[in-house]
Amino acid sequence: MTLYMNLAELLGTRIEQGLYRPGDRLPSVRALSQEHGVSLSTVQQAYRQLEDDGLVEPRPKSGYFVPQARQRPALPMVSRAAQRPVEVSQWDQVLELISTPPGGELVQLGRGIPDIGAPTLKPLLRSLSRLSRRQGIRELSYGSVLGDPGLREQVSRLVLDSGCQIPPEDIVITTGCHEALSTAIRAVCEPGDIVAVDSPSFHGVMQALKGFGMKALELPTDPVSGISLEALELALEQWPIKAIQLTPSCNNPLGYIMPEANKRALLTLAQRYDVAIIEDDIYGELAYKYPRPRTIKSFDEDGRVLLCSSFSKTLAPGLRIGWIAPGRYLQRVLHMKYMSTGMSAQLPQLALAEFIAGGHYEPHLRRMRSQYARGRELMTDWVSQYFPPGTRASQPQGGFMLWVELEAGFDSQRLNRQLLPHKVQIAPGSIFSAAGKYRNCLRMNFATPQAAGIEQAVRRVGESIAELQAEQG
Amino acid sequence: MTLYMNLAELLGTRIEQGLYRPGDRLPSVRALSQEHGVSLSTVQQAYRQLEDDGLVEPRPKSGYFVPQARQRPALPMVSRAAQRPVEVSQWDQVLELISTPPGGELVQLGRGIPDIGAPTLKPLLRSLSRLSRRQGIRELSYGSVLGDPGLREQVSRLVLDSGCQIPPEDIVITTGCHEALSTAIRAVCEPGDIVAVDSPSFHGVMQALKGFGMKALELPTDPVSGISLEALELALEQWPIKAIQLTPSCNNPLGYIMPEANKRALLTLAQRYDVAIIEDDIYGELAYKYPRPRTIKSFDEDGRVLLCSSFSKTLAPGLRIGWIAPGRYLQRVLHMKYMSTGMSAQLPQLALAEFIAGGHYEPHLRRMRSQYARGRELMTDWVSQYFPPGTRASQPQGGFMLWVELEAGFDSQRLNRQLLPHKVQIAPGSIFSAAGKYRNCLRMNFATPQAAGIEQAVRRVGESIAELQAEQG
Ligand SMILES: Cc1ncc(COP(=O)(O)O)c(C=O)c1O
Ligand SMILES: Cc1ncc(COP(=O)(O)O)c(C=O)c1O
Repeated sequence: MTLYMNLAELLGTRIEQGLYRPGDRLPSVRALSQEHGVSLSTVQQAYRQLEDDGLVEPRPKSGYFVPQARQRPALPMVSRAAQRPVEVSQWDQVLELISTPPGGELVQLGRGIPDIGAPTLKPLLRSLSRLSRRQGIRELSYGSVLGDPGLREQVSRLVLDSGCQIPPEDIVITTGCHEALSTAIRAVCEPGDIVAVDSPSFHGVMQALKGFGMKALELPTDPVSGISLEALELALEQWPIKAIQLTPSCNNPLGYIMPEANKRALLTLAQRYDVAIIEDDIYGELAYKYPRPRTIKSFDEDGRVLLCSSFSKTLAPGLRIGWIAPGRYLQRVLHMKYMSTGMSAQLPQLALAEFIAGGHYEPHLRRMRSQYARGRELMTDWVSQYFPPGTRASQPQGGFMLWVELEAGFDSQRLNRQLLPHKVQIAPGSIFSAAGKYRNCLRMNFATPQAAGIEQAVRRVGESIAELQAEQG
Repeated sequence: MTLYMNLAELLGTRIEQGLYRPGDRLPSVRALSQEHGVSLSTVQQAYRQLEDDGLVEPRPKSGYFVPQARQRPALPMVSRAAQRPVEVSQWDQVLELISTPPGGELVQLGRGIPDIGAPTLKPLLRSLSRLSRRQGIRELSYGSVLGDPGLREQVSRLVLDSGCQIPPEDIVITTGCHEALSTAIRAVCEPGDIVAVDSPSFHGVMQALKGFGMKALELPTDPVSGISLEALELALEQWPIKAIQLTPSCNNPLGYIMPEANKRALLTLAQRYDVAIIEDDIYGELAYKYPRPRTIKSFDEDGRVLLCSSFSKTLAPGLRIGWIAPGRYLQRVLHMKYMSTGMSAQLPQLALAEFIAGGHYEPHLRRMRSQYARGRELMTDWVSQYFPPGTRASQPQGGFMLWVELEAGFDSQRLNRQLLPHKVQIAPGSIFSAAGKYRNCLRMNFATPQAAGIEQAVRRVGESIAELQAEQG
């Protein structure tokens, strides 16, 4: 970390700890420069960073202030307990969401697409462009089924930040996190097996369970601390569960970061009942706070955690580059990977390896993290402002998705149909549940909140909700 | 087709029909120019084409001659009949073949890699390079789960050549033919099901059957006409077969093209017993003769054929762009595709669509077809020359692979170990069989026969075979 980032973090922590209160004036640039023995411009940079993160507010000629406390919607309720393992449904709705390519007239608030317009992506595109012209064996031929060795080395370096020591030879490159997850599931489960999942949960996993003929056991999940360990223990006692699949860091769709103690406790449970853990960390590097949270994998001692991720949320989904660190299941995962796609596209792997090795990844992440932190504030404000009173919303700690809960009985699939003529699309809550729960919920994307028409689209969603609620009386 | 190509084809047919015999002098350039009313340079071009294809031989100052009949090795024997459906093995050997990335010191005669150095690929690389710099939504974001609409349109146009009328909305882009095949298998079969296959057969399919817990029923296959229809009928009568999976056009590894009548008859059988056909056409466009053979799919009336292919053999495998036309199984294939990779990499799809739409694909195919036809002649000569007497070899009608059969009891896995210090690798025959048959066979690649060290490598293979045979006594 550079000097200004250190300082920004220190001030940020003080604000969050309540040392400065909403409305307080913060120390002047000069005072901080003297206190910390850094240059004026370093302090200014730190303040700009905090401003970007929505933690301070400049007032012309008077300095920096702690913003007035925002009125935040209440948190969503803890999801209801699962009764039993179920077969997954909801494919039709998922298909609707994913068969429209982006870029048309539709404002797709529903999809999990990051901002791909950042200038910090440019070096990646330059590498891609340069490598494309080479017509070399590495670029155009079959590579190893494990993936490009250079990229695996970079991933091995990156995971150190989440507390993991994983040598390159234990990492397999995949075609997106989708392939990481589906090979992981196939590597540890058979058709008919039961998989415990956090709930709500990523629809890709739900659909993979469906496709492989497995059953999902949805566990109650707290919008702040994640999957309920009590419920999990009970379930492990009661059912022959084969694996636990979850997204504990910057969860999709809820945005929470499971506390480290809970991660450790979950691992202990998995050891006690001898089940595998499929950990999805796709949003983990987009935690707003530095350093990023540790993975469950980082505590794993007997190789039972299959860590899955991709660069789809941190860089660009169109690259389709993901990876899996499958622990003791490496051999089975390799077989599944071979049969599913043989190997992944070479050029994006080579370009990505260059990009990371060239030191371009961290600056990009920094930029995106603060942009998304800002996006969360804006989106939350809009929901407060434009959605009916009583609306609940998540308080994501990373990523770029907001989960919104409306009154019981509300139908977000109907909402989507209502929004269609207005060219707005949200993700209906029901696709995040195996059993089609969360019909009264929806997920919205705030990756590019300042792009044209986003605020208007969110407002439109709020109005359509009000209309539907009025109809229902 | 241009004038000279027409003329070359006409002369080629005459030679093949025996109108001119080995050793015969062919009509002079002037005579042909008068006979066909074309320019002298057109005739010269036609002769050069025939020379490239190994059909004529120039002799300085005397004109063109039909080459002396080559001494060809005898064809491999018809593969033995299957006794019963078996679980697939041989993963270790496949893994060995596919985990070494190409481009090192090893001469990989064993892998299915086309020549990726052709200048006719340049426009594709230019497109890739240009599109890479765009940082657009189409390039970097999630596309539709079906794949890029532009590319699907081009594929729809290309399949006309094989007699198929398939609208773009019935085509799904995949991550290589691997993904096309594995989604196809999953779409029509359940674990435990029996799939009838040609034999020897592509190891990727064998391994997919293994991974999905299905059984392979290997059918006797003729090295000239393909899968035995009599054996297939018997098997359909005897076993609850769910699907037939085969590569009928320019088969891997045998290189035959199944006669059109057999293709029709196979479809009729499939209809009668109501089973699906998974047709792999990955090498179909590389048939040496124009026009390319028709697919079984082209006769399909009730959507029971799932046609799978990719651009891995015709262009470059590193792109990982394949496709499937799943007929009546479209919805199930879409679900399988979504769970396996979500969607395929965007940039190669867009570049490929441009390349085909720009008219660059056909000239490339033409060039590769005649290069590979030439490669076949060279490789066959080398096998005649350097391999022990009694060696049998396929006579491929397309593609760039030669299948070699040695005396019963020979062990091509041992051969590979023997070759290791010489930095040469062949594909052992056993990976092309679910039950590990064909240990006495091997497959070699002749995509780049004139590249440095290839002839020497083949010679080395021959010598090692002789050494092993001598040891065995
Ligand atoms: C939690 C989670 N896991 C996995 C994925 C799939 O990622 P990829 O696009 O890399 O396949 C997503 C994307 O939507 C996701 O939100
Ligand atoms: C007959 C056959 N089908 C499919 C494949 C796999 O092709 P792809 O590299 O496009 O996945 C191959 C490649 O080895 C093959 O020979």
